[in-house]
Amino acid sequence: MVTAAASTATAPASDLAERYLTVRRRSAELARPLSAEDAAIQTMDDVSPTKWHLAHTTWFFETFVLAKAYSDYEQHHPSYGYLFNSYYNSVGTMHPRPRRGLLSRPSLDEVYEYRAAVDGRMVELLDGIDDATAAVVRLGIEHEQQHQELLLTDIKHVLAANPLDPAYRTDLATGEPNAAGRQRWLDFDEGLRELGHDGEGFSFDNEGPRHSRFQQPFRIASRPVTNGEYREFIDDGGYRRPELWLSDGWIRCGRDGWQAPLYWRRHDDDWAVFSLGGLRALADDEPVCHVSFYEADAFATWAERRLPGEDEWEVAVDGLAADGNYADDDALHPQAAPTGDGFVQAYGDVWEWTRSPYGPYPGYRPVEGALGEYNGKFMANQMVLRGGSCATPAGHVRATYRNFFPPDARWQFSGIRLADDG
Amino acid sequence: MVTAAASTATAPASDLAERYLTVRRRSAELARPLSAEDAAIQTMDDVSPTKWHLAHTTWFFETFVLAKAYSDYEQHHPSYGYLFNSYYNSVGTMHPRPRRGLLSRPSLDEVYEYRAAVDGRMVELLDGIDDATAAVVRLGIEHEQQHQELLLTDIKHVLAANPLDPAYRTDLATGEPNAAGRQRWLDFDEGLRELGHDGEGFSFDNEGPRHSRFQQPFRIASRPVTNGEYREFIDDGGYRRPELWLSDGWIRCGRDGWQAPLYWRRHDDDWAVFSLGGLRALADDEPVCHVSFYEADAFATWAERRLPGEDEWEVAVDGLAADGNYADDDALHPQAAPTGDGFVQAYGDVWEWTRSPYGPYPGYRPVEGALGEYNGKFMANQMVLRGGSCATPAGHVRATYRNFFPPDARWQFSGIRLADDG
Amino acid sequence: MVTAAASTATAPASDLAERYLTVRRRSAELARPLSAEDAAIQTMDDVSPTKWHLAHTTWFFETFVLAKAYSDYEQHHPSYGYLFNSYYNSVGTMHPRPRRGLLSRPSLDEVYEYRAAVDGRMVELLDGIDDATAAVVRLGIEHEQQHQELLLTDIKHVLAANPLDPAYRTDLATGEPNAAGRQRWLDFDEGLRELGHDGEGFSFDNEGPRHSRFQQPFRIASRPVTNGEYREFIDDGGYRRPELWLSDGWIRCGRDGWQAPLYWRRHDDDWAVFSLGGLRALADDEPVCHVSFYEADAFATWAERRLPGEDEWEVAVDGLAADGNYADDDALHPQAAPTGDGFVQAYGDVWEWTRSPYGPYPGYRPVEGALGEYNGKFMANQMVLRGGSCATPAGHVRATYRNFFPPDARWQFSGIRLADDG
Amino acid sequence: MVTAAASTATAPASDLAERYLTVRRRSAELARPLSAEDAAIQTMDDVSPTKWHLAHTTWFFETFVLAKAYSDYEQHHPSYGYLFNSYYNSVGTMHPRPRRGLLSRPSLDEVYEYRAAVDGRMVELLDGIDDATAAVVRLGIEHEQQHQELLLTDIKHVLAANPLDPAYRTDLATGEPNAAGRQRWLDFDEGLRELGHDGEGFSFDNEGPRHSRFQQPFRIASRPVTNGEYREFIDDGGYRRPELWLSDGWIRCGRDGWQAPLYWRRHDDDWAVFSLGGLRALADDEPVCHVSFYEADAFATWAERRLPGEDEWEVAVDGLAADGNYADDDALHPQAAPTGDGFVQAYGDVWEWTRSPYGPYPGYRPVEGALGEYNGKFMANQMVLRGGSCATPAGHVRATYRNFFPPDARWQFSGIRLADDG
Repeated sequence: MVTAAASTATAPASDLAERYLTVRRRSAELARPLSAEDAAIQTMDDVSPTKWHLAHTTWFFETFVLAKAYSDYEQHHPSYGYLFNSYYNSVGTMHPRPRRGLLSRPSLDEVYEYRAAVDGRMVELLDGIDDATAAVVRLGIEHEQQHQELLLTDIKHVLAANPLDPAYRTDLATGEPNAAGRQRWLDFDEGLRELGHDGEGFSFDNEGPRHSRFQQPFRIASRPVTNGEYREFIDDGGYRRPELWLSDGWIRCGRDGWQAPLYWRRHDDDWAVFSLGGLRALADDEPVCHVSFYEADAFATWAERRLPGEDEWEVAVDGLAADGNYADDDALHPQAAPTGDGFVQAYGDVWEWTRSPYGPYPGYRPVEGALGEYNGKFMANQMVLRGGSCATPAGHVRATYRNFFPPDARWQFSGIRLADDG
Repeated sequence: MVTAAASTATAPASDLAERYLTVRRRSAELARPLSAEDAAIQTMDDVSPTKWHLAHTTWFFETFVLAKAYSDYEQHHPSYGYLFNSYYNSVGTMHPRPRRGLLSRPSLDEVYEYRAAVDGRMVELLDGIDDATAAVVRLGIEHEQQHQELLLTDIKHVLAANPLDPAYRTDLATGEPNAAGRQRWLDFDEGLRELGHDGEGFSFDNEGPRHSRFQQPFRIASRPVTNGEYREFIDDGGYRRPELWLSDGWIRCGRDGWQAPLYWRRHDDDWAVFSLGGLRALADDEPVCHVSFYEADAFATWAERRLPGEDEWEVAVDGLAADGNYADDDALHPQAAPTGDGFVQAYGDVWEWTRSPYGPYPGYRPVEGALGEYNGKFMANQMVLRGGSCATPAGHVRATYRNFFPPDARWQFSGIRLADDG
Repeated sequence: MVTAAASTATAPASDLAERYLTVRRRSAELARPLSAEDAAIQTMDDVSPTKWHLAHTTWFFETFVLAKAYSDYEQHHPSYGYLFNSYYNSVGTMHPRPRRGLLSRPSLDEVYEYRAAVDGRMVELLDGIDDATAAVVRLGIEHEQQHQELLLTDIKHVLAANPLDPAYRTDLATGEPNAAGRQRWLDFDEGLRELGHDGEGFSFDNEGPRHSRFQQPFRIASRPVTNGEYREFIDDGGYRRPELWLSDGWIRCGRDGWQAPLYWRRHDDDWAVFSLGGLRALADDEPVCHVSFYEADAFATWAERRLPGEDEWEVAVDGLAADGNYADDDALHPQAAPTGDGFVQAYGDVWEWTRSPYGPYPGYRPVEGALGEYNGKFMANQMVLRGGSCATPAGHVRATYRNFFPPDARWQFSGIRLADDG
Repeated sequence: MVTAAASTATAPASDLAERYLTVRRRSAELARPLSAEDAAIQTMDDVSPTKWHLAHTTWFFETFVLAKAYSDYEQHHPSYGYLFNSYYNSVGTMHPRPRRGLLSRPSLDEVYEYRAAVDGRMVELLDGIDDATAAVVRLGIEHEQQHQELLLTDIKHVLAANPLDPAYRTDLATGEPNAAGRQRWLDFDEGLRELGHDGEGFSFDNEGPRHSRFQQPFRIASRPVTNGEYREFIDDGGYRRPELWLSDGWIRCGRDGWQAPLYWRRHDDDWAVFSLGGLRALADDEPVCHVSFYEADAFATWAERRLPGEDEWEVAVDGLAADGNYADDDALHPQAAPTGDGFVQAYGDVWEWTRSPYGPYPGYRPVEGALGEYNGKFMANQMVLRGGSCATPAGHVRATYRNFFPPDARWQFSGIRLADDG
């Protein structure tokens, strides 16, 4: 949730309208390579159809902005509130998540009509909006960006489930074929630090309040773990040695028969990897991706290191610009690390699992009302990831941004950065 | 399987070609009201997407006719054999049935291209075909008709799962609003009968061989049980009284919370029913439909009767023309029984559950090779139904036709006719 | 249910009392080798603890005899009716079957006290009993014999689940080490036969009414299939060839990883078999045992034969004495077939799967009231077995006796006899 | 693991032997009220049979002490290593946890023989033991105490599953019928604190290393939440209001139909509670017990407070003696809080859920070898509890002791203490 409505309000309304329309158009642009059939499929409970993402983000503006701003607002369709509510119990009952892929209606075209209708009303409203409403709009924009990333990770899962190995796009950028440099270690002293968001500019409520934390000395790797390094872990029996794994991870590994990251496939004694551009040979210099927290932790144990805490990560990136390989770079695939000193690939490419369970910062309280369900109620059984990925919209993440997924999640662009005690 | 290839061969080849094309066009016609999205959805393991039906029936001709007729035949697509094989283990591995709804590719358009390509080669081949091949083509035609019925029952399930209650078609025929006449009892003496198909004309292998059977005296009802009669069963606690149910049925009833036939819905203290034309008020005079064998049996116990054996049904319809309310009548919904003497609604409207487990007739042997998997391997845990339904293509069923489904199946157009000892 | 109460009543009451006490003592004798711990374990939903069998059979007499005979009868314990009702919905609610193994109380000793208390009242009652009550007592005696067999099959499953491979008894009879003779074929002509029980002496309600049936000519094997013959099926890929299996059987085989009969275990490149006497080497001449209907059917298909119908079996054993290797012979393991002409091992040794689904005979009606739940409500999804086993009490089975189990059941002493069309 | 072997070694060997024997005898004493049948039952995967606890703790000494100390040590039984290994993958494969209740053999008597045999060898060894071995013995003693508590919580679950509501003991101490005093708030300032075990005396490896932590100001309640307070939460719709719950908790609450703490039972419009002494009326002044973390968190949200962090709890109890209502007090049930100032019931009565996910302290490394599996591999998906319970052996817990269970666990003696920001 918006922690500093005031700062949003300093932007002129027309800027907000422009930002609104830019983000809304971007969602449609991301869906454009897909057929109506592609946009309807759900391959597991965690995955939502593309069409659902397009509708749900629209429902967010309709429910939390339009319906509140206009006392006589009439819903675009009487059933959409039921169909496209994700998890806001305070707003009403909802269509069960595992059944999102059973809906051929509304059609993709009807969802676009829904988007157009809501956008029309939103544009009217944005002209002369009050600060409180602007703060919710801003939240809705960031919310839509989160769903843009999910749209990409979900459609990757959908296409990967198809024996035809279809590509999402065949014209993706390939980037420079870098050779990942040597992993170096960056050292940090102990000390009392200020962590969390300070309220300047937008942030989600879970990023604050800013607070003091005493930190032990630590070291952190200069870049993420590569496919080549991960391949060594596999070749050394990483998936067959229980002593490397957390207990729950080992159970899950055995139950689901994990033998490699999610989209790796055996191909003539070598590995291929399914990407949004289709099947490709595994590039050893690229960061390893689509591993669960359990795999990341097992890898770190094998390497005789550990994962960083989210606090360590936040300290380590202090002062770095939030630049990186984002979705807007049109690669939609992690790239080999650029050469260079210091901490590289902090942002973009792959989300980095931390060893921090997702929980409230000292003094955290969810906001009142339905929007309080946005973040706080998920503070159990999830781990924090930091830094964004190649599927994250540019401009969306920052040093204090806390992403979170269950420790067995593998369908996000999630990778590994090592750390150690100082 | 074709039991009398000779009889097929008596039809001139051009007749077979015409019949082939008519049936193939009909499949596309049935799919026409559906969007590509509709055609991709699978709502339970037993349901296949419309698109899959269109492709699988094509694969049948490609695999069992074209690939055998032309030594140099090249498959339309190298993966379609894997994707569209249903259960012919002898032909190779197959895409798992519960995952048919995860395939957005091939697209519906590509499936139509597949159909066109195979139809082109088939038409060539049909000109001057030998008897053995003609027999397989004839089987493929009947097979496609079976899938036409499944296409309708499956899309009904898909649309019913959508909270928007979409209709498959809004222009369906409504038929005469008959008042179902009184149920009368028709008596049959004991005696030795000849049952099963005699080999004249097409039949599936499971309809023969024709054989003698000694039959005890029995009575059978003149018409199927109506919604009004079934409503009395419900009102009398039919779904809450274990003494009326088979043990397995009672367990299933409790586990899934059955309280009425599949598509009945409570609506302001009355019942509505979901049909291929959308939601409509329940008509008491129409035959009850979408009940499982367990419900049919419980109803019969409640009525102090029993279900007929398949042999009794076959004796009772002897000499009746196979006319009735079929899919070609464009109602796609069971109609109230016409007035008239004798045994009415033998054919069409609703499949009639019998108390006969589906098994081999004396002397039955499946044919050699993959087509032997068509019927024989399902002879366990299923019950026989007779007479066709309002979703069956006209001309497809006959007195000896044996349909079969597990006793808990409810998504077929299945109803109840009562019988009793003589 | 008793079909001919009169015949029971011709036995003097004192005979019934003696028979009652003999059977009751036998149950306790069967439980004697077991500790209280052994008697409490349940290894799958289908298995009941020994203690439960001892209590449930007692509850049967208490509920259906004592409580009906004495208007002021007071239950031995207010909760036993709930705990030890098996499936008689008409009598009241019951403790869930899968939870029978969670009960350490009542203790085994308390169950014996329960037995003694009920036996005391029963003995009083049997002195001067009326015919109708005597018929129920007789049913209760046969019911207890059925549970004696289940006690043995269930405890075998319990002990087999223990990595220590404990024997039920180490002093079992071993019998003559016969060499099973060559399997010969016995031929039967077509004709109209009378089948089912004629009402002389005790029978269960499902064995009647006696009725006419027209039978096609058939052949039946002179003896059951042996372990040696079954081993050939395994060695020939029997568990890896889908074309041999019914569809449901193949799915089950794959899901549960079947590779041999239930209690066969790989042991140094050979097979050992777990028996009630502990682990022993597999004897090729003994009848194969602990196979499901699916395996029996697949074996028959592999052998290019089929299983017999229950009618064929009944015709084939006509006139044979019901002698065989029963539980009273103290082997509790099937023995190799004796040499001899004609149909051997009809009774005892192994139950023989038929291809007949368990259903009602023409004219069958369950008796009124709770005892009508004894047999009729299980007439779906089960297959008939004939002839009794080495775990069946002597004197319990006869030519018309119909046992029934689901087609995937393997923990009974179930084997295979082949048949074919004549 | 033992962090300070030296301190153990300062105790004369004879003291260690005495302590060993005292604890070993106590386990048998706890099992004495139970029959062999009671001791064999497992009512859910998390529960182990009493007999298994008695054997597993013995296996621990046999495997980690005797087999290492004597090069020619011969196992008491060749299968016990397989049967009674809990989760030490490094030591070998193990019998699956959910199948522990299927073992009637070894018998309870055989397990006692196993205990006696191992105790005999242990006593020999303890006379003149080296420091390193003494440290493992000390760990084994603490390990056995942990299983003493589990034995009690598990047998409570076993007895509660029995419709006869059997008591574990009928002679338990009832304690003073206190009236729980008013809940007061104790305030703590911010500051840098030292937390974790300092290495003096025994501790588990997860309690250290001692480390600095900056703490925000906080308040903590003077006593645990009572049944009476929790009843208000229920009466106010606590189990029906999703806005009070974490998302995972709400799903679990709905799936399992939670409506009250685990052993509460509706009884004539009031609540009864199942205890180790049998069913009793709910006492409003006693601490609420057998709630999951999810329920504790929902209660705190409803009360507009939060749960304490484990660090806050540790700071708050600083300087308090570890006295309380422990298992040795023979109540085996939480007692109403004594009157008194300050922080009461810190120890004993009920474990107190914290909001701290169980993870490694800064600088934590598991010990090398199999004993490294003791604690570290469970550091995911569990929450920390503090303070011990009425089922914890006296002398076992301390200020730094970290217990941990998954957030849905309810069968431990787990309660709630509220906290808030300062």
